[in-house]
Amino acid sequence: MLNIKKPALLLNSDICKRNIHAMAAKAHEQKVVFRPHFKTHQSAIISEWFREEGVTTITVSSVSMAQYFAQHGWKDITIALPVNLLEIEEINLLAAKINLHLLIESVETAAFLTEKLIAACGFFIKIDTGYHRTGIDVSNVVLISKVLEASKSPKLHFDGFLTHSGNAYHAKDKQELINIQHYASENLLRLKKNYLSQYPECIISVGDTPTCSQMPVLPGIDEIRPGNFVFFDVMQFILGSCTLEEIAVALVCPVVAIHHNRQEAVIYGGAVHLSKEQALLPPDPEPVYGLAVKWDRKNWDTTTVLGKVSSLSQEHGILSLTQTGCNLKPGDLVAVLPVHSCLTASLMKEYLTLDGEVIETMNS
Amino acid sequence: MLNIKKPALLLNSDICKRNIHAMAAKAHEQKVVFRPHFKTHQSAIISEWFREEGVTTITVSSVSMAQYFAQHGWKDITIALPVNLLEIEEINLLAAKINLHLLIESVETAAFLTEKLIAACGFFIKIDTGYHRTGIDVSNVVLISKVLEASKSPKLHFDGFLTHSGNAYHAKDKQELINIQHYASENLLRLKKNYLSQYPECIISVGDTPTCSQMPVLPGIDEIRPGNFVFFDVMQFILGSCTLEEIAVALVCPVVAIHHNRQEAVIYGGAVHLSKEQALLPPDPEPVYGLAVKWDRKNWDTTTVLGKVSSLSQEHGILSLTQTGCNLKPGDLVAVLPVHSCLTASLMKEYLTLDGEVIETMNS
Repeated sequence: MLNIKKPALLLNSDICKRNIHAMAAKAHEQKVVFRPHFKTHQSAIISEWFREEGVTTITVSSVSMAQYFAQHGWKDITIALPVNLLEIEEINLLAAKINLHLLIESVETAAFLTEKLIAACGFFIKIDTGYHRTGIDVSNVVLISKVLEASKSPKLHFDGFLTHSGNAYHAKDKQELINIQHYASENLLRLKKNYLSQYPECIISVGDTPTCSQMPVLPGIDEIRPGNFVFFDVMQFILGSCTLEEIAVALVCPVVAIHHNRQEAVIYGGAVHLSKEQALLPPDPEPVYGLAVKWDRKNWDTTTVLGKVSSLSQEHGILSLTQTGCNLKPGDLVAVLPVHSCLTASLMKEYLTLDGEVIETMNS
Repeated sequence: MLNIKKPALLLNSDICKRNIHAMAAKAHEQKVVFRPHFKTHQSAIISEWFREEGVTTITVSSVSMAQYFAQHGWKDITIALPVNLLEIEEINLLAAKINLHLLIESVETAAFLTEKLIAACGFFIKIDTGYHRTGIDVSNVVLISKVLEASKSPKLHFDGFLTHSGNAYHAKDKQELINIQHYASENLLRLKKNYLSQYPECIISVGDTPTCSQMPVLPGIDEIRPGNFVFFDVMQFILGSCTLEEIAVALVCPVVAIHHNRQEAVIYGGAVHLSKEQALLPPDPEPVYGLAVKWDRKNWDTTTVLGKVSSLSQEHGILSLTQTGCNLKPGDLVAVLPVHSCLTASLMKEYLTLDGEVIETMNS
């Protein structure tokens, strides 16, 4: 029985390990390199659970995160953010120690690295296959060739083409998700074919949890980089990537007030714990910030939904209660399944397992 | 010249001290108690700047925050969140050391405290004057009387009625803001009059930055509790509470990519730095997550707007660039004025002053 007094991020390690195993097994079966994104958990302890599944290659989203995991024995790391030129010193130190892979998407960055890199590095060209956040448009072979030209250096090794289909998060249905995946794959394959004679070892790296969890990997893809699947969350549930039972984390929060007249509870648990990420949970037209389920002081129970988090202040949350939720009273605890577990985990800085063990992260 | 390599929350301490002075002076002139909310800065060092203005009474949003400021010499603290009964031990320890004030809004909580409090405490009844987040409706005198009845204990001293007009943040214009302030004030005054013979010392406490910064305090109000004004932010600018020049914090971020074809830049700086708080900045119909201005490595310049943050991932942000912003290149830095400085400050955990001094917070 856990003695929780204030918001705590509970981790069901059995579910988490099952999620890791399932994705590792899928990558293994489909014969692709598994390079999970560690931005979701940011924890050396959880990273060991990946190692137990044979994982040796990982993805991170900052130089700081690469430093942290390198310190914890990870030797092959892709930093999946366009290179921050201001951290060239830190990049050189890392590249001297591990197999580091960077993302390049401009001639300026390629020229800068060609000049400033001391240790050898791999690099991917970041390709935009429809998300339009960043990367070179998949059709822009002129720019891609220029970047490859500007990257010619004994210190830079071309790894291949990398994309993140973040637009998968906006897919209206499974067919649209399939279309997004196929569009990315077909265009990346065509690109690879263009450059294969020059760069026979270049690969294609893709990765987002919706497609990696819902679909088989398409032929020709060499590497997948999903991250969120380690915990999943309400957003992935809405997208069809997981069941509620597969969500591995929940924010346990005290109830501090009940308003029966409007079927609402106030919880101690706000934007500084959950993040203000919101999602639409049809048929409800209003966005939610989390889904509150029963917490029996040992585990949470997704079959007993107590309410949805309908608004968030800095430290408060408002639950719109279900019929069952109306029995809550001040001093009770609820478990809130987060909308976006990556952000909630980053905010909470540590996990508490159901056995009461504290699991630290790089933010602890 | 500051050597910033990754997202850092810069604090202009001159602006911050001016903001503190202005609000302290206003409270002094209008003869109301100034009990600033410290949830915005969460820093013992910044709290000293309030002490220099004669402030001795403060507001916080959690027991943990009350513990932190009590450790730093603050002796009169209101915890402006309905009491978390699960932290009764911590509350008793605090109440034994300082003048602690709690918020009660139910008979259950009153009865619990009457039974469990060891040290003496003050309490406010939390009143809902239109925000509908929490509190007892201002017209519900039956429940208010019941709570007062259930709170009769030598350990509990009734301080008065407290409200937070969070609906001020949704006011369409100045007239609506005035209406919100007047509605709250008139109803609280009527309430106080009802109970004044029984509780001659009871006071009325109000507080939110939009009304406290834009309007005179209305007659009969005894105490104000604004918090955000210490830094202000883009949301307060939109609401008319401050000018852009009065915003005291900015997140300095490296530019990592430019997409000239769509007038966008990618910055290293995302939801884990700024928070996903968004606001509408008319006439633009799309929400923004921050406003990027020029950073000359010594200070930011609000007269040179480089773009708005139009979307945020975990560690990335997308800037929709102005004409001037189109001159940015990878390796440059920009200063992003946050939409909600309280959340950005909480995420960043520390400040860097323009003199290069690190200012810690309770989250450092």
